Amino acid sequence: SDSYSLLILPGDGIGPEVMAEVVKIVDWFGANRGMSFDVSHDLVGGSAYDRHGVPLADETMARAQAVDAVLLGAVGGPKYDDLDFSVKPERGLLRLRKEMDLFANLRPAQCFDALADFSSLKREVVAGLDILIVRELTSGVYFGEPRGIHADDNGDNEGGRVGINTQRYTSGEIRRVARAAFELAMRRGNKVCSMEKANVMESGILWREEVQWVHDNEYPDVELSHMYADNGAMQLVRNPRQFDVIVTDNLFGDILSDAAAMLTGSLGMLPSASLGAPMANGRPKALYEPVHGSAPDIAGQGKANPIACILSFAMALRYSFDQGEAAAELERAVERVLADGVRTADLMGPEGGTPVSTSQMGDRIVAAL
Amino acid sequence: SDSYSLLILPGDGIGPEVMAEVVKIVDWFGANRGMSFDVSHDLVGGSAYDRHGVPLADETMARAQAVDAVLLGAVGGPKYDDLDFSVKPERGLLRLRKEMDLFANLRPAQCFDALADFSSLKREVVAGLDILIVRELTSGVYFGEPRGIHADDNGDNEGGRVGINTQRYTSGEIRRVARAAFELAMRRGNKVCSMEKANVMESGILWREEVQWVHDNEYPDVELSHMYADNGAMQLVRNPRQFDVIVTDNLFGDILSDAAAMLTGSLGMLPSASLGAPMANGRPKALYEPVHGSAPDIAGQGKANPIACILSFAMALRYSFDQGEAAAELERAVERVLADGVRTADLMGPEGGTPVSTSQMGDRIVAAL
Ligand SMILES: CC(C)[C@H](C(=O)O)[C@@H](O)C(=O)O
Ligand SMILES: CC(C)[C@H](C(=O)O)[C@@H](O)C(=O)O
Repeated sequence: SDSYSLLILPGDGIGPEVMAEVVKIVDWFGANRGMSFDVSHDLVGGSAYDRHGVPLADETMARAQAVDAVLLGAVGGPKYDDLDFSVKPERGLLRLRKEMDLFANLRPAQCFDALADFSSLKREVVAGLDILIVRELTSGVYFGEPRGIHADDNGDNEGGRVGINTQRYTSGEIRRVARAAFELAMRRGNKVCSMEKANVMESGILWREEVQWVHDNEYPDVELSHMYADNGAMQLVRNPRQFDVIVTDNLFGDILSDAAAMLTGSLGMLPSASLGAPMANGRPKALYEPVHGSAPDIAGQGKANPIACILSFAMALRYSFDQGEAAAELERAVERVLADGVRTADLMGPEGGTPVSTSQMGDRIVAAL
Repeated sequence: SDSYSLLILPGDGIGPEVMAEVVKIVDWFGANRGMSFDVSHDLVGGSAYDRHGVPLADETMARAQAVDAVLLGAVGGPKYDDLDFSVKPERGLLRLRKEMDLFANLRPAQCFDALADFSSLKREVVAGLDILIVRELTSGVYFGEPRGIHADDNGDNEGGRVGINTQRYTSGEIRRVARAAFELAMRRGNKVCSMEKANVMESGILWREEVQWVHDNEYPDVELSHMYADNGAMQLVRNPRQFDVIVTDNLFGDILSDAAAMLTGSLGMLPSASLGAPMANGRPKALYEPVHGSAPDIAGQGKANPIACILSFAMALRYSFDQGEAAAELERAVERVLADGVRTADLMGPEGGTPVSTSQMGDRIVAAL
């Protein structure tokens, strides 16, 4: 069927602004490419807290479980900094990831040619960069028990407290995200590098062994290497183009994918997809969101770059709706607009260009389609 | 007293080669600056395993506890990759850190002017970079219990195993490393940035609160900021010069300090110090080692750069022996040799220079002293 249900969760900060541009794109594909979208909107993060006292209402959670794809803007902002841990904006996002069981977080780090000079790295190190980080998203130290802050009054402990989190991975959790990485690598450069700290953590040893097992038993033709995560951080800075697909755990993935994103100079351009198991209709549970955050400092000023969020919708076309051609069409439209020198504030370099607002950028991309 | 006991643990790979050059420097200071060094040598890592079946013998541990300072080369190599976790070369290093209680790991990330072009980052982003990462080194997920790999046979878990590590920090552990960071900041740019993941980990919340407590109660005049570690990785890539001192936990410190080291383009130049509590003679327990690893690919070929290890001895002069002027003298000698264009293989760029071997580099530095 060419009918797709979408739940839009704009969230906080610049989320609503960039999402408004995505809606224009969704409408365009509905009107011009014979797809029909059933779009609903709801709250997440601080905006949900303001309304419901929780960063994700149960009804919203239920709707997210029922749709073909969730599009999320961003969550968080200084207004919510002092909230209790349990109701912080981030908890809404983490609940979606966990309850939808979105175990594979796909974070492409791509350097757009028109923007290579924005990178703090030398052009020759990042030009043409195109790596894909596959981050485990539903387990590890983000969710492991026991966790918490407790009194700890042994005589030596000045301050009398202890904080605990648990890094916990099962073999099954590792295998399923490894499979996702190998599948993706086969459609790209056919190379996977797995990162952990097997030299100091037993959970890292298990990670390495299980990734190797999946490789040897199911994907022997994909090139697999292993790297300690600290060396991985070094190699990403030194020569990121040595990588094709990187697979790593939730916490390492958080840090390494942010470093990789920043290498590209294209932070305002980078989308992400978080995928789970197939639903009854064959489509995976899925949530799409830009890599950038809620950027409260520029919220509400029409300065935000909507491209990361728009390209997140392109990922939805590809991974949720199997509309690879439509996704490529949208990606080409974005490239064309950039090549024409159209620039939101974050993309405006010394060589100039045509300055546009958030909504003008959306309009230009629609026009280019 | 001007008499100092030193335990030299060359370790594996290029460790012995670079340490041989340090010995020349030690001898020079003994002969020319009225210091007297009582130097002993012993084994650590793979070389200790080869001799004793363990990566650190109990006698070596006892000697390390008794000296004023330990100098370590590097541990590890492919020969030892398949050893059991409990006897891997790294366990020798981790045992030294833990039993000497070396809680504050100082990792300067400094960009040497003569080498700025070696960085993959643009010169204008890294030139003059001088940050100090203070990494907690004796706790966190490196050492927390419970840990291990166990059978886990619930019906859903393909593979039937689970790997566990525990991130555990007490308030006292956080406070003492925070104090070290504030003290160091006062001798530098007076700014500390603390990094954790307080948005997803309770141990990160405790970290943030305790660092803030030490600041408010003891170092109110040092500028303190907090940053999530993923954003920290981004900011290190985007604009590393915004930082002065960074304080963070064992695992984040491992990754972020390696990324920071690589930014400088000077990996073969970077020393580190690991400091514990003061001993009876007032000197802190201390271990000094280069940031680079054992580089098995170039071991035994006279290609290694001994400067990181030599500058680690400069840190020993400063932090263990309170010989700040001698430390500066050694650092200036290194700078002079570099300014003269003397280059080991790793420092040889397009602009050329005088190629030298490991031992010639050591001789040049002695000559410059
Ligand atoms: C907002 C935060 C909880 C989140 C994370 O740590 O996973 C973010 O940094 C991300 O990477 O999506
Ligand atoms: C060798 C290894 C155990 C060590 C660590 O992870 O701490 C190293 O990476 C370091 O940073 O000193």
